[in-house]
Amino acid sequence: MQGLWLENNQLRHRTDLPLPQPHVDEALVRVRQAGICNTDLELIKGYYPYTGILGHEFVGQVEQGPAHLQGKRVVGEINAACGNCDYCRRHLSTHCEQRSVLGIVNRHGAFAEYLTLPVENLHPVPDHLPDQVVTFTEPLAAALEIQEQIAITPSHQVLVVGDGKLGQLVAQTLALTGCQLFVVGRHAEKLANLSARKIATGFEPDLQAQLRSFDIAVECTGNPQGFDLARKALRPRGTLVLKSTYAEHLTIDAAAIVVDELTVLGSRCGPFAKALDLLDQSAVDVTSLIQTTFPLSQGIQAFEVAQQRGTQKVLLSMND
Amino acid sequence: MQGLWLENNQLRHRTDLPLPQPHVDEALVRVRQAGICNTDLELIKGYYPYTGILGHEFVGQVEQGPAHLQGKRVVGEINAACGNCDYCRRHLSTHCEQRSVLGIVNRHGAFAEYLTLPVENLHPVPDHLPDQVVTFTEPLAAALEIQEQIAITPSHQVLVVGDGKLGQLVAQTLALTGCQLFVVGRHAEKLANLSARKIATGFEPDLQAQLRSFDIAVECTGNPQGFDLARKALRPRGTLVLKSTYAEHLTIDAAAIVVDELTVLGSRCGPFAKALDLLDQSAVDVTSLIQTTFPLSQGIQAFEVAQQRGTQKVLLSMND
Repeated sequence: MQGLWLENNQLRHRTDLPLPQPHVDEALVRVRQAGICNTDLELIKGYYPYTGILGHEFVGQVEQGPAHLQGKRVVGEINAACGNCDYCRRHLSTHCEQRSVLGIVNRHGAFAEYLTLPVENLHPVPDHLPDQVVTFTEPLAAALEIQEQIAITPSHQVLVVGDGKLGQLVAQTLALTGCQLFVVGRHAEKLANLSARKIATGFEPDLQAQLRSFDIAVECTGNPQGFDLARKALRPRGTLVLKSTYAEHLTIDAAAIVVDELTVLGSRCGPFAKALDLLDQSAVDVTSLIQTTFPLSQGIQAFEVAQQRGTQKVLLSMND
Repeated sequence: MQGLWLENNQLRHRTDLPLPQPHVDEALVRVRQAGICNTDLELIKGYYPYTGILGHEFVGQVEQGPAHLQGKRVVGEINAACGNCDYCRRHLSTHCEQRSVLGIVNRHGAFAEYLTLPVENLHPVPDHLPDQVVTFTEPLAAALEIQEQIAITPSHQVLVVGDGKLGQLVAQTLALTGCQLFVVGRHAEKLANLSARKIATGFEPDLQAQLRSFDIAVECTGNPQGFDLARKALRPRGTLVLKSTYAEHLTIDAAAIVVDELTVLGSRCGPFAKALDLLDQSAVDVTSLIQTTFPLSQGIQAFEVAQQRGTQKVLLSMND
């Protein structure tokens, strides 16, 4: 089958890949559409030493699996857990120490014609939602993870740093809490997309009068300047949520974290069911985040576009 | 009067300093003894651009103040707060945005014959406790701040990284919670001091089998290696408490914080009353942490000793 293969920091389009064989308790899924995430770009840069088929945001159709899923359109949670360790028993399977992770750790990913995942990872999607919408389930769930970790209320002043794909999803999900939200970014048209949804936005100079006032700041840029801005925006005892995976090490002002007794909180994968609910209710808009769609056969060109600064979501379609 | 004056990263012993004049609501305190803290060493390196008399750990005697404190031996909280801002009203006066900080921010410190502090900052000390013991009230309170921020129970596995002055106080206070405590350090004799108090200790290689298992790790070294070790020792979703103030920026593996959804928590000044209670009950031992005592007139030599690697607490006596 076709697929995009990462090896030694090089991504190649291959047509000689074997069809994956589902293990017991796994399903074989024909991929319909997949999304390129910044984590994929970081993996190519070497954030984690992965060799195999890349990709972890997808929607597909079950070709082999249990009767209740047979032929169904599904999205899939990316962590395949052991089910037996302390973390699995404590319902923290995203932290299972033996886990494989779709397209990231020891498990071939979604930029291919087929993939396999444990049946328990799959979620059928509502018929009325198009592929290009449900492909956002995984990053939307990741945005919602923040609210699994922190109870955000209308009294909270919350800053989102970054107006890219992740920042947009984080901002839209935080807006649903009724919190006092501000998004700082660098792209007028991306900020306008949020303003149209009644979210307050601005550029860095617009934030100067609000420094040291936010209860929570979510870093969605993946660069040290973004971290610094988030930190400076926080009031003493505020919380800085770290949502981006950085390939490179991050240099921080540790003394400021101590003096202001800040909390820095890492945040990763989130609840798929809640993300699907929001998509089902059209409570968030994801189609405005789509830059373009390429067929899988042009996956390398798709990555060239995705790697350009400021690019929104690039999708791969396996149906063309 | 005599005092140790910091200006442009240079510490000087001066004899021409004016006697400080207490403002309304302040007391004039004759300093009896003071302790050199790593923060003082970091201030000399430029951690914060301070000019003035250094020093914030002390015991003294009230020479001018309200009747109930007149002539009393006291220790003093170092943050002088405005009393009116949001933080002060929320009983977070250590985070008052207008605060001055003894020997650190806009307020002359304790390495002098006299200092002034707000009356409300002063705590009389039990008569039976010698000066050299109560001088440790401030750093002991800082160690106790961890327990103000996190409810630590006997079920928690807690690591302290660092066997220096701060690590010793943090370890002793954490041991009182009944948690499963381990201290990793680099100095056999300092670790032996903790072992004698039935605290489990070891060198870095002894920790290898316990990596990714601790619920809480407290970084008390102030160096990037200490941070890294604390991070690697934590289980997913664990908490890294940052107790040291670093003059230099800290380079961290941010991706690991995101992937393991770790919490990094800055921790600073703590509760004086609880620290005095522990000293009163002899629940912690501080005298074993004293390296040596110099008269104030030999303060520069005292700093030369304090700056040597591995030195324990160096005290300054104003009585000699």
